[in-house]
Amino acid sequence: MDDHQQPPSTMTSDNTLPIAIIHRLPRFKLPSPWAKDIFNPIEPSDPLYPIHRPSARIIIIIGPSPLKSEHLDHYPSVECVFGTSAGVDHIDLAECRRRNIRVTSAGSAFSEDGADYAIGLLMDVLRRVSAADRFVRAGLWPVKGDYPLGNKFGGKRVGIVGLGNIGTLVAKRLEAFGCTIAYTSRTKKSQVPYAFYPSVIDLATTSDSLIVCCALSDRTHHIINRDVMTALGKKGVIVNIGRGALVDEKELVKFLVGGELGGAGLDVFENEPEVPKELFVLDNVVLSPHKAILTPESFDNVRDVVMANVMAFFSNKPLVSEIDLSDLS
Amino acid sequence: MDDHQQPPSTMTSDNTLPIAIIHRLPRFKLPSPWAKDIFNPIEPSDPLYPIHRPSARIIIIIGPSPLKSEHLDHYPSVECVFGTSAGVDHIDLAECRRRNIRVTSAGSAFSEDGADYAIGLLMDVLRRVSAADRFVRAGLWPVKGDYPLGNKFGGKRVGIVGLGNIGTLVAKRLEAFGCTIAYTSRTKKSQVPYAFYPSVIDLATTSDSLIVCCALSDRTHHIINRDVMTALGKKGVIVNIGRGALVDEKELVKFLVGGELGGAGLDVFENEPEVPKELFVLDNVVLSPHKAILTPESFDNVRDVVMANVMAFFSNKPLVSEIDLSDLS
Repeated sequence: MDDHQQPPSTMTSDNTLPIAIIHRLPRFKLPSPWAKDIFNPIEPSDPLYPIHRPSARIIIIIGPSPLKSEHLDHYPSVECVFGTSAGVDHIDLAECRRRNIRVTSAGSAFSEDGADYAIGLLMDVLRRVSAADRFVRAGLWPVKGDYPLGNKFGGKRVGIVGLGNIGTLVAKRLEAFGCTIAYTSRTKKSQVPYAFYPSVIDLATTSDSLIVCCALSDRTHHIINRDVMTALGKKGVIVNIGRGALVDEKELVKFLVGGELGGAGLDVFENEPEVPKELFVLDNVVLSPHKAILTPESFDNVRDVVMANVMAFFSNKPLVSEIDLSDLS
Repeated sequence: MDDHQQPPSTMTSDNTLPIAIIHRLPRFKLPSPWAKDIFNPIEPSDPLYPIHRPSARIIIIIGPSPLKSEHLDHYPSVECVFGTSAGVDHIDLAECRRRNIRVTSAGSAFSEDGADYAIGLLMDVLRRVSAADRFVRAGLWPVKGDYPLGNKFGGKRVGIVGLGNIGTLVAKRLEAFGCTIAYTSRTKKSQVPYAFYPSVIDLATTSDSLIVCCALSDRTHHIINRDVMTALGKKGVIVNIGRGALVDEKELVKFLVGGELGGAGLDVFENEPEVPKELFVLDNVVLSPHKAILTPESFDNVRDVVMANVMAFFSNKPLVSEIDLSDLS
């Protein structure tokens, strides 16, 4: 990505704010307040859009709105695409590379919240927090007496699938609970004290629970498949805060309904917002509407990251959270 | 407690197992397996109970079954009472002291689980895990769209009320989430890096959330009162895993219903198993049926602690988790 067109070193050449095309599905709303003193956001519905479309140099994608080749065709001058999600699987990266368009993600803006939530989901499944809350709200405590015991969280063996920004923070948290941590990822990380397993199945075999927090790609699609679930075993718990398609959902439902897995904490699903209804009746499952990384505080963080990236772009400085497109498989 | 009658240095003088009176409410069941090779458990329903009652030297209390003066009247030879709960507020300690009866608790057997659960409840309230699970199970995700955001957990200011076995482990966990930790307790702990506030109100004023995990006594009854809730403020969250009566429950309900508190995660209540029904409709509240410290693993731990105490008692060695009765206020 060294051959992209160099932008001028000032924000704009004519003392007006640079144009940023806002690309979003209707359900992903523009954050408010948005830093309008740094760029001028233009949506396709804007009367000025036809004027600015041909010359716009940057696109800001709100949430995981898909950005495909046919979208890019509308923007012949675009040089950089700024994502506001932790993942970039909604962006056609190969097409961006082909067109010499740079891409940024939200970087680590969401990482703390994602890691926090992963711990929350695992705790909730093991200790049955949500299920016990249902039990109390249904008025069953005085009627049925003690709620069935859950399982201990502290000291358990937890396997992390994907030791990136979020996975690393998950591990840090698990350490404080006395958990034994292992991980799988494309390559062994140096300076990481946790056991590395190149094979997810081997990781599952030696873990009580798996936390899935890797990026979705062709390589990681259904990385948690039937064989991994079998290796994890009847008491094993799967937490997924990555993307739905990292887990073979049909198999997962079969394993859970058949009692072949201990439980699951799922923030993401293969066909969101659809969730397999078979899971609605299970007390060893916690279901969450793709919100692991979403707090008011993380929205502030991501806005800061986007602003920093935009300012770096127009100042011809290194981008804060650029995706390495030379690495596409 | 130096003047109690010294037991013989062998387990029993006649090579039979020592008798242990089992004292329990019917709803607290005898754990199974129980180490019958160490003592001979006798319940009042046992045909041999009348024979052993006058000479029994130890009582084992199952769960928080109340042990009062009138119970002790039945056991003129009792020297030591072994609790199986983390707290000992169900035992008439003053009466035990008067009769020169030693008392043990479950010590730290439950501490890890208690600390884990406290983190789980706080996470659940802040990030709305249980409420979001209800939202998904009700089929509302495809209908209503995004679930309202919760609040960030990591990095927040958390005040710990009672820095004992559990509180210390809570603090250790919170550190990994980047939280700022402060505490109140009867006295400042040396070698603890957290800010100490002698006053609960001052602690509440400088905290985003409070985790209540102190013992219940006359001194701590309703330690979380109206003034503390006011000091904590509209966004403040209270987690209680100690005893229900540590919190003024009527005031808490008023504050929550009136939107004067951010939320609450409650494992304990003033009139268990009754839970104020006003709370059943609140999404910023997580309700749990007094199970913070209960896992199969912690039951194993507590059995080990009781056994160690019993063996120490009959071997005339220091008890593992003796309560200091000289400290009664």
